[in-house]
Amino acid sequence: MEGDKSIGGAPAGLGMSVGRLEAFSDGVLAIVITLLILEIKVPAGHEGTLGSALAGQWPQYAAFLLSFLIVGIIWLNHHATINLLQRTDHTVQVLNLLLLLPVTVLPWPTALLAEYTHEGTPGDQRVAVLVYGLTSSAMAATFNVLWRYILRHPELHKPQVTTELLAVRNRRYNVGLLVYPVATVIGLVSVPLFLVLMLALALLYLLPTPDVRT
Amino acid sequence: MEGDKSIGGAPAGLGMSVGRLEAFSDGVLAIVITLLILEIKVPAGHEGTLGSALAGQWPQYAAFLLSFLIVGIIWLNHHATINLLQRTDHTVQVLNLLLLLPVTVLPWPTALLAEYTHEGTPGDQRVAVLVYGLTSSAMAATFNVLWRYILRHPELHKPQVTTELLAVRNRRYNVGLLVYPVATVIGLVSVPLFLVLMLALALLYLLPTPDVRT
Amino acid sequence: MEGDKSIGGAPAGLGMSVGRLEAFSDGVLAIVITLLILEIKVPAGHEGTLGSALAGQWPQYAAFLLSFLIVGIIWLNHHATINLLQRTDHTVQVLNLLLLLPVTVLPWPTALLAEYTHEGTPGDQRVAVLVYGLTSSAMAATFNVLWRYILRHPELHKPQVTTELLAVRNRRYNVGLLVYPVATVIGLVSVPLFLVLMLALALLYLLPTPDVRT
Amino acid sequence: MEGDKSIGGAPAGLGMSVGRLEAFSDGVLAIVITLLILEIKVPAGHEGTLGSALAGQWPQYAAFLLSFLIVGIIWLNHHATINLLQRTDHTVQVLNLLLLLPVTVLPWPTALLAEYTHEGTPGDQRVAVLVYGLTSSAMAATFNVLWRYILRHPELHKPQVTTELLAVRNRRYNVGLLVYPVATVIGLVSVPLFLVLMLALALLYLLPTPDVRT
Repeated sequence: MEGDKSIGGAPAGLGMSVGRLEAFSDGVLAIVITLLILEIKVPAGHEGTLGSALAGQWPQYAAFLLSFLIVGIIWLNHHATINLLQRTDHTVQVLNLLLLLPVTVLPWPTALLAEYTHEGTPGDQRVAVLVYGLTSSAMAATFNVLWRYILRHPELHKPQVTTELLAVRNRRYNVGLLVYPVATVIGLVSVPLFLVLMLALALLYLLPTPDVRT
Repeated sequence: MEGDKSIGGAPAGLGMSVGRLEAFSDGVLAIVITLLILEIKVPAGHEGTLGSALAGQWPQYAAFLLSFLIVGIIWLNHHATINLLQRTDHTVQVLNLLLLLPVTVLPWPTALLAEYTHEGTPGDQRVAVLVYGLTSSAMAATFNVLWRYILRHPELHKPQVTTELLAVRNRRYNVGLLVYPVATVIGLVSVPLFLVLMLALALLYLLPTPDVRT
Repeated sequence: MEGDKSIGGAPAGLGMSVGRLEAFSDGVLAIVITLLILEIKVPAGHEGTLGSALAGQWPQYAAFLLSFLIVGIIWLNHHATINLLQRTDHTVQVLNLLLLLPVTVLPWPTALLAEYTHEGTPGDQRVAVLVYGLTSSAMAATFNVLWRYILRHPELHKPQVTTELLAVRNRRYNVGLLVYPVATVIGLVSVPLFLVLMLALALLYLLPTPDVRT
Repeated sequence: MEGDKSIGGAPAGLGMSVGRLEAFSDGVLAIVITLLILEIKVPAGHEGTLGSALAGQWPQYAAFLLSFLIVGIIWLNHHATINLLQRTDHTVQVLNLLLLLPVTVLPWPTALLAEYTHEGTPGDQRVAVLVYGLTSSAMAATFNVLWRYILRHPELHKPQVTTELLAVRNRRYNVGLLVYPVATVIGLVSVPLFLVLMLALALLYLLPTPDVRT
């Protein structure tokens, strides 16, 4: 049967199930979104009051919130994409791992951004923005590689997936591909500007609109 | 079909499944409840015996236990709420992420509270209580936002959900909304009092009563 | 219907599902068993070779291995127990949280034991053994509380659960209740003896025998 | 009934389900792959620019990437293997725990390798390679123990598992058993060579070929 062969040569029912792909990815995404808080430290040996010490940590809160939202968005998009599949193949699995790579990396540029927003030289701040921007752009890029592979393999789709739905999503993900690199280039001017811009884009994305709800 | 459209425009079977919403949220809750212990340090370079050094760390144990119970309670309520749904929509997903935000933040005010119970000035202690109180109040508030959205969207419910069940739960969650802010205001007087009060309320909540078992 | 009422007053299908209880508990157990390695440090600024520095860390490896095995055993027993259920109630959920409390605590006495095996005074070593012993005994005790509640509530069981199976398991878990306290008392003599004894007991437990395989 | 007895003496439906074995293992693998980033530190108090400080950390990135890929490969192989089963027994569960032991250990040799690639003496570097090589070899070895047990117990297999499929996989896993020890011996010459060789092997493995896709 051709249906069997398309699952990487394994007989039907022995390929990677969609459920386990989701469970593993959900695990990674849930852990990353929860580990982010470990980068926010309790002030120790601070001068002045605890209140002012906490207020001085605002770049840490902004970087945390931004990464929380980015991981949340990737989770929503990931589910919406994997949910189109009725089965997977070896390439989907490897491309999914490729997407999880920048996702697991994210806590590190988050800490970098938080650390250098205040104290770094302008040059160091640009490096921090660049590393964060590259990581988030890599998330968008690897997500799109996975998306395009799925787009081109209708034999993996559930029967109710329509070309209209695929076209709407494709436009939306193509836009998403541009957002992070553009924000990064703008952000090279200043870290606070980068944080505000990225936060605004993430919040905008989460607001429901007729288009983005599909 | 109207049923299809209500899943954010996606054809039936392609919206976010309730199962994956639960799996991701369970992952986040399980990780937060397990990360809390990382804030309790092994005494190093202590004077006197290890026994007395460990005894001196009691605020860390109290803060750990309190946060463990609060996350446990949120998990019970979250499951009881999501379990009413037979499907979700974009808003449920975004409101669920909104609830997970203060949940993932909790290890940080927990460490803050543990650190400043003993050693801080009275002013610093009030700040620590305030940050902890605001985080736990934000958990209750975002939970109630999610709850009220679900309450007002019966088209998402399983058929066996009754208005009586919803009314009982609604009264209970409304009370829950008041508990953390009130305890926080009382707790501004002293951190130990705050810990005792919050622990008592959490334990009271977990005890089964005819009302709270629904 | 009586069947409905037994799920804490909620209509059928709206109580806590066994699946979500397992998923949350599996999450906590998987995280604890994986966090243990974070307590083993990379030697920095050591005298002599890296090889000898690593060899000197043996108490850390022994404590890690012991806690890994204890969490693994709890996971096996937890699954075997929850798998008897076809539904849960509020008490099962709260008792399950009670069991997860010492489970999440375990990384801390593990670090304590590793730290004080070598360097502590004899008194400090006894305290470290005692804290570890109390935590593992609390795991066995809370597991038995959960077990006994389930034992006494046959209305929660799957139909194929037999009284013979329950009797075999009950004997085995009663023995398990004694193991940790007895090992702790013996271990007050010396930490290495405690580690060897506990490791031997854990390995013995994992070996398949006709009795323990049920 | 014979079917019942084969599940470790427990009546049908009460043995460890394949699903929970997968869920727990997925949890551990997802956590390990996500914890790896915690070993990469944000440069603090560095001389020169942040850019050059980050560039100097390349061994940390290489070690992270290698461990990410190794855990990803183990996850793919683990799923492909467990997915052959329609039920498990006590031995599968214990052998699965045995496999998870070196998996949870991996973040530690990863940190060791990253730390000593640059700064260690040649002798210390060899020790770091050796510990990493032993851990990854232990992962391959324990995986093969689990695999061979499953290979020899066809009564646990799904009906569609064919001897041809088992033979193809067996050849492949036998090769995998040799890869890590051989790379370790070669790597004793130099840590960078070890990193390059291991990375190349991991990437080669992930590329789809007719043979490895089954």
